[in-house]
Amino acid sequence: MEHMNLYLAELVGTALFMVLGLGVCANISLSKSGMCGAGGIVAALGWGVSMVTVAVCFGPVSGAHCNPAVTVGFWAAGNLSGSLVPGYIISQCIGASVGALIIWQLYKDHLDEEECPGTKLGVFTTGPSIQNSWRNCLSEIMATFCLMFVLLSLGHQNPANGVAMFFVFCGVAGGVMSFGGLTGYAINPARDLMPRIIYTLVPIKNKEGSNWGYAWVPIAGPLMGAFLAAMLYKVIF
Amino acid sequence: MEHMNLYLAELVGTALFMVLGLGVCANISLSKSGMCGAGGIVAALGWGVSMVTVAVCFGPVSGAHCNPAVTVGFWAAGNLSGSLVPGYIISQCIGASVGALIIWQLYKDHLDEEECPGTKLGVFTTGPSIQNSWRNCLSEIMATFCLMFVLLSLGHQNPANGVAMFFVFCGVAGGVMSFGGLTGYAINPARDLMPRIIYTLVPIKNKEGSNWGYAWVPIAGPLMGAFLAAMLYKVIF
Amino acid sequence: MEHMNLYLAELVGTALFMVLGLGVCANISLSKSGMCGAGGIVAALGWGVSMVTVAVCFGPVSGAHCNPAVTVGFWAAGNLSGSLVPGYIISQCIGASVGALIIWQLYKDHLDEEECPGTKLGVFTTGPSIQNSWRNCLSEIMATFCLMFVLLSLGHQNPANGVAMFFVFCGVAGGVMSFGGLTGYAINPARDLMPRIIYTLVPIKNKEGSNWGYAWVPIAGPLMGAFLAAMLYKVIF
Amino acid sequence: MEHMNLYLAELVGTALFMVLGLGVCANISLSKSGMCGAGGIVAALGWGVSMVTVAVCFGPVSGAHCNPAVTVGFWAAGNLSGSLVPGYIISQCIGASVGALIIWQLYKDHLDEEECPGTKLGVFTTGPSIQNSWRNCLSEIMATFCLMFVLLSLGHQNPANGVAMFFVFCGVAGGVMSFGGLTGYAINPARDLMPRIIYTLVPIKNKEGSNWGYAWVPIAGPLMGAFLAAMLYKVIF
Repeated sequence: MEHMNLYLAELVGTALFMVLGLGVCANISLSKSGMCGAGGIVAALGWGVSMVTVAVCFGPVSGAHCNPAVTVGFWAAGNLSGSLVPGYIISQCIGASVGALIIWQLYKDHLDEEECPGTKLGVFTTGPSIQNSWRNCLSEIMATFCLMFVLLSLGHQNPANGVAMFFVFCGVAGGVMSFGGLTGYAINPARDLMPRIIYTLVPIKNKEGSNWGYAWVPIAGPLMGAFLAAMLYKVIF
Repeated sequence: MEHMNLYLAELVGTALFMVLGLGVCANISLSKSGMCGAGGIVAALGWGVSMVTVAVCFGPVSGAHCNPAVTVGFWAAGNLSGSLVPGYIISQCIGASVGALIIWQLYKDHLDEEECPGTKLGVFTTGPSIQNSWRNCLSEIMATFCLMFVLLSLGHQNPANGVAMFFVFCGVAGGVMSFGGLTGYAINPARDLMPRIIYTLVPIKNKEGSNWGYAWVPIAGPLMGAFLAAMLYKVIF
Repeated sequence: MEHMNLYLAELVGTALFMVLGLGVCANISLSKSGMCGAGGIVAALGWGVSMVTVAVCFGPVSGAHCNPAVTVGFWAAGNLSGSLVPGYIISQCIGASVGALIIWQLYKDHLDEEECPGTKLGVFTTGPSIQNSWRNCLSEIMATFCLMFVLLSLGHQNPANGVAMFFVFCGVAGGVMSFGGLTGYAINPARDLMPRIIYTLVPIKNKEGSNWGYAWVPIAGPLMGAFLAAMLYKVIF
Repeated sequence: MEHMNLYLAELVGTALFMVLGLGVCANISLSKSGMCGAGGIVAALGWGVSMVTVAVCFGPVSGAHCNPAVTVGFWAAGNLSGSLVPGYIISQCIGASVGALIIWQLYKDHLDEEECPGTKLGVFTTGPSIQNSWRNCLSEIMATFCLMFVLLSLGHQNPANGVAMFFVFCGVAGGVMSFGGLTGYAINPARDLMPRIIYTLVPIKNKEGSNWGYAWVPIAGPLMGAFLAAMLYKVIF
């Protein structure tokens, strides 16, 4: 099968990304974790360095999108062949599921002993701090727009090899710091949907609902934000 | 119109900068935000990575000043044609207004539900922790002086492509860490004035005054600080 | 003796690494320390910059593994001659012991005045937040797997000189942020075993047990994780 | 006067360094500061980026030591002519005094309104968390040894232009994170002595003693540590 290496890189990369990123959420929120309460700064820097880590490992192979919205954005900007898009997205979704399963296993004891059901769900999915579908979706659109615009801009910079990773870090960590408190900064359909499915399926003690009513927001918002960023980028540059 | 691309870059860049930067302030201070209380470290690193993000996107076009004081500083140091200064500043002011409007929309529910009026105002503007006009102005002069001196010094460094962004990050984040508690580290007339105007105009529940009596400080201080940095830089180097 | 310079670099490097790294643990956890309570973000960034510091000093000589698991991983991936492995590991173990002794001396007064015995032990060793040998071991396997995979991936990147250090920082600091609350992120047999021995031997007021029952986990887990990363790396790349 | 440009760079650089660094201490410790309580992470990162900022501005001229211990270390390692040492140190001491005076003016209202005398003193000077002259001195020796060893090691690295600044950041910020809680990480005779003198001389409301009994430690310790690092460096490399 053609492009198998690209798809494999996206799959393993997204799995690693989810292990690291959901790991951050679990690590700082589950009450028995030794790092419980480490705070928003760890969420921001943790997701930022997770993206860098994955990009170091798999960027040279597939670009390490690890995010269907980013894949759509690069395609809309003309940087990725449309024929690769379905394979990328499927790989990312499989990878995100694998990553969520690993996190479930790693943090199983902590999830079972956690007393707050919302915290259990929050390890896997994002959610709004104030429910308002239109504004929550706007938040995800804006957050993904900013990230995608930065990623596209790396193309007209000419940084020394590897330095672009610092910009990727700034884009991701900065997004959490600017928008994280609104909707949890999903910016990635696979990052939210697949762990939500896994959370729904696996056994966790005293588990409550999966908040499926919100699930469309971190799918639609990021896809729209990335698409809009690609459009604006093409207009400006 | 000549130089339209430069002005457009400053406008969109400043809008993005304000969305990211004011977003940090809103994100960590509004009581319903999921990241409320994330603390001064997020303020510092958040503004730092916001500046880097904008500089990655628009630096190659216009220099990504996004700050009238920086524009004046580069002009005073002889690095920018005087004929560009008015257009840069007007673009930055329009951009800052657009950014503040976007933040208002993004955080509208949180602003309305916030109980502390000072926190609402603090999302948009800076203010002194101890009111003392002369010393507050001195604080803004010194803070902007330091930042401007670093930005000018990048010219006699010869860092590998992109590495200068790390220095920009250090200059901005470091300034917040050294001076943020005095007057909020405005260092940018457009960053303070335009959001203050927007705050005054838009509807927010239980809004109180806009503290216009202080508004001249984050305009005059940064302009003077940047000018002095340019003068000292020319004397030393 | 051949390769003496390599072994000396690993010995001094690991000693420095332990002084800096255990220093972070002591600094933020001992109740009389001026930085007590500085939190998980300092643990993460502190270990990250400690690794960078050591790699800057000794990387050009021996690679600055400072970790038997990393040495085994590079050997398994074919990047290190098997004849060097025993010397590397012995040097690392001696170095880790020296480093732990220095930390004991530096923080002696603080260790003696500390009232919580668990905190005294925690300066020297790692431990699980929820005891479960199989899952604790899995945590160390996964954490070391991720770090080793990043380190191996640096080989197929071609970053500008020195930029790889930023990736090393992200790998180490990110690991703490994703997994630190599970088992303390040992990822290094010498880092845990040798300080545990030193803790057992040196006089500290009101010292309690050394939790030897757990000691095999941060030895076996990291070695297995690094080995698995090398295997997967060879399969994929 | 020969080498005037070097001495001027050290003077202005050290003044800037003290404004930024003491600013961090004031910003996070004075109870009326808007960033009071921002914590140890801001102390660590703040001093780290302050050093980078100064090195960006003045490194290309004089090396931006801004620290008599570093100057002695480079001289002992054979990297600096002995004839420059007195001028460097005098310039650094004058600069540190100027910086401390500026901080006094910037934070005057906050210093006057501060209720805890120890906090006032702590803005200007370092001090031990547990008084023990020999061990406090050992702490400063070890901390300065580590930093000096890193700075010397930059010479045998060949990082891309500007990347060494990231290592300097790691060295300084890491030192605070590993040793800051012991004696405040002075590592710099001028950084502690000159602000202590300024603190003694300037009027501050409800000021108490300057703890002169401790003043020799952050002078002798850093000088010895830097000298030892230079000796070991010459033996190893």
